[in-house]
Amino acid sequence: MMDHTHKAFDTDLQDLARMVAEMGGLAEQQISDAADALDRRDLTVAQRVIVGDARIDALQRELESKSVLTIARRQPMAVDLREVVGAMRIANDLERIGDLAKNIAKRVVVLDHEFRAQQVMRGVQHMTELVLSQIKDVLDAYARRDLAKAVTVWKADEEVDAVNNSLFRELLTYMMEDPRNIGICIHLLFCAKNIERMGDHATNIAETVYYMIEGRPLVDERPKNDTTSSTVVPFDA
Amino acid sequence: MMDHTHKAFDTDLQDLARMVAEMGGLAEQQISDAADALDRRDLTVAQRVIVGDARIDALQRELESKSVLTIARRQPMAVDLREVVGAMRIANDLERIGDLAKNIAKRVVVLDHEFRAQQVMRGVQHMTELVLSQIKDVLDAYARRDLAKAVTVWKADEEVDAVNNSLFRELLTYMMEDPRNIGICIHLLFCAKNIERMGDHATNIAETVYYMIEGRPLVDERPKNDTTSSTVVPFDA
Repeated sequence: MMDHTHKAFDTDLQDLARMVAEMGGLAEQQISDAADALDRRDLTVAQRVIVGDARIDALQRELESKSVLTIARRQPMAVDLREVVGAMRIANDLERIGDLAKNIAKRVVVLDHEFRAQQVMRGVQHMTELVLSQIKDVLDAYARRDLAKAVTVWKADEEVDAVNNSLFRELLTYMMEDPRNIGICIHLLFCAKNIERMGDHATNIAETVYYMIEGRPLVDERPKNDTTSSTVVPFDA
Repeated sequence: MMDHTHKAFDTDLQDLARMVAEMGGLAEQQISDAADALDRRDLTVAQRVIVGDARIDALQRELESKSVLTIARRQPMAVDLREVVGAMRIANDLERIGDLAKNIAKRVVVLDHEFRAQQVMRGVQHMTELVLSQIKDVLDAYARRDLAKAVTVWKADEEVDAVNNSLFRELLTYMMEDPRNIGICIHLLFCAKNIERMGDHATNIAETVYYMIEGRPLVDERPKNDTTSSTVVPFDA
């Protein structure tokens, strides 16, 4: 690239990084609001999360346009190109995280009844905290191009899966104990699944950061410990 | 663009279209195999679906690289640029559809027990057929740049939501009738949710086709009839 092109490209990259940071901040806020709304059954907060998702969607589209124009105008190669593609990929994952937070908020609207299993709600909160810290860490790894931190996030997904597995079993127990719990427990199961999927997106982002820095995919087979889709339920529990 | 550049660009576009068609064909096959495996509890087919997902993931990455290089080399503008961005977006949706089919296949592995509610399985099959025909139609709309067909798919999502809602209520009834059904019904609930989400991705693809042709988003508020995340469950059922 010529010098003036490179300067313009650097400005473009800074814009993209700023947009990723803004989306990341919004996504974190949406997760924490959705979890808060779920915990306190707060319909006002839930409604705010539902409405607020549109902003993240709009930012993702803006970032996509900006990335594509940057590629067309500056014709970056190698590491420069990976920077732009990386920003687009991360924006996709953050947009999906926003959708998942919105889905939790939609469920809060119908959860307003007396069932409040303290242990379950603590499990949900714990999972949310884990996922939030993963997202913060991976966005930090992106901002600082910190390879080690990205790999750490990538490996930490097991912990989220473990909490999700124990929540899954707990919710099953409540459902089997009393059929009146079934409806609410199903909503909580879907909420927990959504939080677990946010963790998967944090893992994807870690992979993207790795690819941006190293130029090759993170391929080692990570032990995948989410067993909720393959848990054999004891039918005489 | 100069003439020779335009010719090269046309070849690039044809390659991208061919890759989208290949991904679409694979995704359709994965859905139909996953549904078949679920219906017949066929572990061999389920295993094939789980393994086969990697091919769709790889194609999505290839298509992304090819798109980015095309943008950098040919610097397309306006409608030409939308063609490339559109292919990337559609590939993202097809990759997600593949993930959802894989998730259903993973659940088949643990469903091997005697509970076979004919009506529920018919509902799942019906939903799968609807979603498969939506995906076929929207890929056809993409291949022919058929605006009307894309809009038709976009509107047809209501039907999938309606089947999902009735399945949801049916599964709840089975769970409340007999706690021994709870485990398997939860897996079927997640399978139904996955199929419904495939329909959402078909809708996304319809929006992309519209954007490619018209250069603006499909914005009319479509009536959204998926109420499973906001169904108030009768607690004394």
